[in-house]
Amino acid sequence: MGDEKRFVMISSDCHAGAPPQVYREYLERKHWDLQSEFLESTKASQARLATTIDVFGVSKRQEWESLAEVEAGGIQGVWDPELRIRELDREGVGAEVIFPDGPNGNPTPFGVGFNRPRDQAPPELQAVGAHAHNRWLADFCATHPGRHAGVAIVMAYDIEGAVKEVEWARKTGLFGGVLLPNLHLWTDEPESFYHHPRYEPLWSVCEDLDMPIHTHTSSPHANYGDIPGSRWMMSIEGYWNANRLFPFLVWGGVLERHPGLKVVMTEAGGGTVPYLLWLFDRMARDRNPEAVREIMSLRPSEYWARQCYVGASPPSGRMEVESRDAIGVRNIMWGSDYPHLEGTWPRSHERIREMFAGVATDEVRLMVGGNAAAVYGFDMKMLRPIADRIGPTAKDLGLALVTAVN
Amino acid sequence: MGDEKRFVMISSDCHAGAPPQVYREYLERKHWDLQSEFLESTKASQARLATTIDVFGVSKRQEWESLAEVEAGGIQGVWDPELRIRELDREGVGAEVIFPDGPNGNPTPFGVGFNRPRDQAPPELQAVGAHAHNRWLADFCATHPGRHAGVAIVMAYDIEGAVKEVEWARKTGLFGGVLLPNLHLWTDEPESFYHHPRYEPLWSVCEDLDMPIHTHTSSPHANYGDIPGSRWMMSIEGYWNANRLFPFLVWGGVLERHPGLKVVMTEAGGGTVPYLLWLFDRMARDRNPEAVREIMSLRPSEYWARQCYVGASPPSGRMEVESRDAIGVRNIMWGSDYPHLEGTWPRSHERIREMFAGVATDEVRLMVGGNAAAVYGFDMKMLRPIADRIGPTAKDLGLALVTAVN
Repeated sequence: MGDEKRFVMISSDCHAGAPPQVYREYLERKHWDLQSEFLESTKASQARLATTIDVFGVSKRQEWESLAEVEAGGIQGVWDPELRIRELDREGVGAEVIFPDGPNGNPTPFGVGFNRPRDQAPPELQAVGAHAHNRWLADFCATHPGRHAGVAIVMAYDIEGAVKEVEWARKTGLFGGVLLPNLHLWTDEPESFYHHPRYEPLWSVCEDLDMPIHTHTSSPHANYGDIPGSRWMMSIEGYWNANRLFPFLVWGGVLERHPGLKVVMTEAGGGTVPYLLWLFDRMARDRNPEAVREIMSLRPSEYWARQCYVGASPPSGRMEVESRDAIGVRNIMWGSDYPHLEGTWPRSHERIREMFAGVATDEVRLMVGGNAAAVYGFDMKMLRPIADRIGPTAKDLGLALVTAVN
Repeated sequence: MGDEKRFVMISSDCHAGAPPQVYREYLERKHWDLQSEFLESTKASQARLATTIDVFGVSKRQEWESLAEVEAGGIQGVWDPELRIRELDREGVGAEVIFPDGPNGNPTPFGVGFNRPRDQAPPELQAVGAHAHNRWLADFCATHPGRHAGVAIVMAYDIEGAVKEVEWARKTGLFGGVLLPNLHLWTDEPESFYHHPRYEPLWSVCEDLDMPIHTHTSSPHANYGDIPGSRWMMSIEGYWNANRLFPFLVWGGVLERHPGLKVVMTEAGGGTVPYLLWLFDRMARDRNPEAVREIMSLRPSEYWARQCYVGASPPSGRMEVESRDAIGVRNIMWGSDYPHLEGTWPRSHERIREMFAGVATDEVRLMVGGNAAAVYGFDMKMLRPIADRIGPTAKDLGLALVTAVN
């Protein structure tokens, strides 16, 4: 039937976060004063950061803010579940994966998530903040079961605590998996790096409970200063840091030991993946192959193909699509980055047309939804009728003239 | 005439360093004890490092060490100028660019150059060590004028001192230019990053004196620990760190202000350059174009094409060659990496055949020598007759069947 042709669109990269007074309800009373103090003490650095990383420019921001959909309050879907589902429906997005980082004054408690380490509270309070956000997110996602895959923030200082958080998150319905801090968040010592054996229980629980692990572009740890160039360097280095998860996991043997562990690097400049795969395969062949064999039985690119994914959001999405033969058509998942300015929202169809121009319809179907359905285990029986109602057709996405493969 | 067809081969990546007793002659007497103490204190960490980064494996090392050319002592050309010129001639290499890092017990004084920061002496002694190495290198290069382009080590803590070192190096005949420490060598604060205005006098003197600036893969600053995977991660992260020079210079406006400054990233995994150029051009278009225009009048890829180069040594050389349309045929310079095990020496012709298989002869001619001649200003009138005597023909490099372009 004709409806069968509508796309099940799943965004692999969306954001949500609540206002401080809402988050407060998810914190224990003994942390209220500390959270108020934290907000007060980081106000200046948050404001400075907002200026420094005003990466889009006044005219672009004004243009964006004047869009009818933005003016109509769609951005408030960052914490209002009804406004959010309205925007998902309007854009024909059946389901989504939700990271933290709600813009417009909804900072995660104690700065966990995407803040620079220097703008976060001490480790023990970060774990408190993460759990408060995760509890709020679980309630938020429960408003429309099956459509929101919430990603739990898991700090990895204390592995025992991290394992418990993953177990709690899965049980509570956060099937989006786990957001890990990017590398280099702590020290330059071995325990900071994801090939260290101390993380083993964390990888095991994520594999056993089918919780994909993620890095996502975020503020790098360095202080580039308020000098020309810094605002772009922060973005560029943020991509790099998120991308470093794959090398540490492949060379640390984590992907060998955990074939069921799914690894996603989101909004991380996946255009560099073909280079990494080429280099790593060559290194595995030429650099101490005896020692490589002790760590891995496959080639690095085979681990990638089996269990690693790119969350492909603008601005690098088009390059990821152009490199799909090397990255793998089944390893790329489109993300709208809702409600961030740099994302495809509120004009996702238009932006998808640009991003996937010239690509075969069946490939697009995988990249805009089919792959994410498989990675996160969305219930397609439940999403199919929703897509039949709201999903775009190939023609809506400008794909009508492209011949399908397979 | 037929000899005209012989290639002028110039290696953009070679290494030299002297034994401690030779370096001592280039240190002031007051530093002798400090250098002995430094050598003693780093002996353990050097040995541990040698184990940790034994990246090639026992069998490969044994195979390499049993090659006739290696057995014949060719590796001693790392400090013996006559053995070195014998090896250059035997391989048909007319000229070379020389970095520090002589293997086999020839550590640079006070650990400057490619050591991890934690295995280097304090900043003031690093400058002393750099100057001692540079003085030794100048004498070494003077043994065969025009064939060795020595690269001076320039520490960039103290910019006034750095400028003086560049002036001294140029005057003394080190026309290879300047080796800069990779980023993140010091702190995570703004003055560590190459887009900071404090470096401006250094860029000016390098531009004015036509001294190309370099980063080269080296040990990253982090301590990955003696755990599985670390030896490869050190290589991978070393590439990354060397490659970061370009983004900082382009986004900091350095390449706009210094159109004559030449920038070379050597043995740094240049296969990632096409991704960087794509991303940066897109960012310049989409991310605060008003602010971008205050920094640069060209697209990032145009600065690259005009003044940036890849020193293409194994293991990533083949990928750099495959990406030559995106990187630029005139922006790639082959390097033998003599006398490192991972390089093409002592079988450079054989390795060049692999690296350039299927590439048009005229393009190979640029990449194996022509480009380096232009970048470093080698005296081609002097090198032509040497190449007529020792240089390989297209047939020697397996290129006979490929149609030339232009």
